[in-house]
Amino acid sequence: MSNPTTAPAKILTIEDEPPIRNSIVAYLEDSGFTMLEANDGPSGLEIFRHEHPDVVLCDLRLPGMDGLEVLSTITAESPETPVIIVSGVSLLNYAVQALKRGAWDYVTKPIQDMAVLESAVRRVIEHAELQRQNREYRKHLETLNRELRQTLKYLEQDEKAGRRIQFQLLPEDNRTFGGYTFRRRLYPSTYLSGDFVDYFPIDDRHVGFYMADVSGHGAASAFVTVMLNTLVIKYRDALYLAGDDTVLNPQLTLQRLNGDICRQSLEKHLTIFYGVIDLEEGTLRYSNAGQFPYPVLHDASGARTLECPGRPIGLFNEVEFKARQCELPPQGDLLLVSDGILELMPEAVLLERLNALLPAMEAMNLDRLAEELGVLPDRQLPDDIALLAFSRGRGNG
Amino acid sequence: MSNPTTAPAKILTIEDEPPIRNSIVAYLEDSGFTMLEANDGPSGLEIFRHEHPDVVLCDLRLPGMDGLEVLSTITAESPETPVIIVSGVSLLNYAVQALKRGAWDYVTKPIQDMAVLESAVRRVIEHAELQRQNREYRKHLETLNRELRQTLKYLEQDEKAGRRIQFQLLPEDNRTFGGYTFRRRLYPSTYLSGDFVDYFPIDDRHVGFYMADVSGHGAASAFVTVMLNTLVIKYRDALYLAGDDTVLNPQLTLQRLNGDICRQSLEKHLTIFYGVIDLEEGTLRYSNAGQFPYPVLHDASGARTLECPGRPIGLFNEVEFKARQCELPPQGDLLLVSDGILELMPEAVLLERLNALLPAMEAMNLDRLAEELGVLPDRQLPDDIALLAFSRGRGNG
Repeated sequence: MSNPTTAPAKILTIEDEPPIRNSIVAYLEDSGFTMLEANDGPSGLEIFRHEHPDVVLCDLRLPGMDGLEVLSTITAESPETPVIIVSGVSLLNYAVQALKRGAWDYVTKPIQDMAVLESAVRRVIEHAELQRQNREYRKHLETLNRELRQTLKYLEQDEKAGRRIQFQLLPEDNRTFGGYTFRRRLYPSTYLSGDFVDYFPIDDRHVGFYMADVSGHGAASAFVTVMLNTLVIKYRDALYLAGDDTVLNPQLTLQRLNGDICRQSLEKHLTIFYGVIDLEEGTLRYSNAGQFPYPVLHDASGARTLECPGRPIGLFNEVEFKARQCELPPQGDLLLVSDGILELMPEAVLLERLNALLPAMEAMNLDRLAEELGVLPDRQLPDDIALLAFSRGRGNG
Repeated sequence: MSNPTTAPAKILTIEDEPPIRNSIVAYLEDSGFTMLEANDGPSGLEIFRHEHPDVVLCDLRLPGMDGLEVLSTITAESPETPVIIVSGVSLLNYAVQALKRGAWDYVTKPIQDMAVLESAVRRVIEHAELQRQNREYRKHLETLNRELRQTLKYLEQDEKAGRRIQFQLLPEDNRTFGGYTFRRRLYPSTYLSGDFVDYFPIDDRHVGFYMADVSGHGAASAFVTVMLNTLVIKYRDALYLAGDDTVLNPQLTLQRLNGDICRQSLEKHLTIFYGVIDLEEGTLRYSNAGQFPYPVLHDASGARTLECPGRPIGLFNEVEFKARQCELPPQGDLLLVSDGILELMPEAVLLERLNALLPAMEAMNLDRLAEELGVLPDRQLPDDIALLAFSRGRGNG
């Protein structure tokens, strides 16, 4: 099809009466169209197939092949080509049939004013062009969508695969070490989490655990959690392999971690609470590098937060962390929630809720606890949320 | 607008001659349409605004307000509502004007056959419905497109941020240790790489380097490269902190790495070539865990590959790696390319090309070398490709 915006549109008129055909051709040529003409259906179709006109004007009463048949053939072969029926007034009923078969318009003969015909021609050309643009745009959108979906699918699968790896690095849920049962949950705001938790036996007498929150979220932050996880594993190895007991000392562990993270110059920092339980003494030694909200310790007498301000890791080469210690109640729980929770409720409300929830903590699934705190399944979280809890002197102990 | 697929379409006829109006209303009501009627422009517009008819039939010659004005008002307020002009044959020229102003069709009065009018009505309803579906579909596609783009943008930014972190973990390019100048390139097939390289001074006398390729690619594999990078850093630390010289021994380093990776149960394995240069002796001790193609060593006498088969890391808990050693030429280069290159050319072709390229290696930028090997800028790589090279006894030495 010729492009109506650059070349003059090509009009094919199929009309057996020479005077009418000639006057149509003369008028429309004067109006700037390129004219093709045929005096019966078969030759009209031949020209149509060869020249791909932009518009076909077709009489209904034609010798040899009926106008309706010509119309049906063109409409079947090229539904986007406008056909205008030009026929006698007495054939109006017939014209209606033509319109039903796909004619775009009809003009009655005798043509009292050729401007009416020209107007009809211009109208269908414009309409056909609009339809074409519409089709193109739709096709363009559909192609684009397909491509976007594909790229998206690839990236989603990629991040999901990353997420599987990250979750494999988490400790097994519901593990008991010397009477302390540890549980954990990780709810990333997208696929990959900047929050991370771990707990592990250090030696026969000590259990270590931490909750960390890397600045930002997503892949970049998740990378740093992998680094953190690996580093702490190697701190533990250093004890077995070289008798280096840094990992037993929360203050020194955070110090070393700060050195190791700063050395990488990653423009990422992290907050981390690291604790070591002495199973014999029933005490908790801990140090905190900016992790907030503070842990909540709960026993028969109620709940209290372990206030422990401190600066994050990865920001300053020289930074001191404070060594802290507390007794652990014979029966009770310690709960850590990462600061993503504060996007769902202010701290005061959180503490109030925890006060109400902690007495039932023992029987409570961590998912249930998370739900009570507003971490609903399918809720789009504004930030990653992690939960880490241990219970002592309970059923599992 | 009433929904033409469930409720009968509402037609408003604006016609000042009661007999004509009545016959139109009667005929179209019989045909199943809901009819609204007005006998002049202002009341017609009022009904139009109040009832939102699906089609408006409008006479041109109306008392009070001209039909063209009614048409223009409706077209401006609701371009998607079809207006059909019903006017006297003597007004044909006027009708053309109406069509130019946006009338969808015209029917000449006297209406010889009401079926013609009905046909016109049905045609514009169908057309309007198609247009509506078209608009809806387009809007749907556009919304989808916008949403897809947004999600995609988020994920791309996420992976790009991850990529920045991963590249920050790479050693500085073009570093010289005791006469050995190291260079490296990483060309991930997407954002995140499963290939990784590193080089570092171990002590005054030794320099270590490795090239690794984690199974798969993307985020999950990149996580394992972060783990690898962190582990090797801690092996180096173990030497300073505890005198553990594993990192000086390639065979034992791979052994330890295998233990550390297997312990994580990640369902990921990796190939790695690890070498330690003794700067005093000018020797290279190395061990290979399945990394392929083998390194190519080049000196004045030509190029040769360091054949060093071995099994990958992370697949078997118990696996032995072979300790190997070779003299380093006083002047020469060692080049490692990861197996992504074999997706671009078979090994034989690679070796042939390297033979031709290595004599010019000294002056050659690694990007240039990569280009010569088919790693063209903007080429979509089927797999990650890494390059690691060191030169000895050259300009920088």
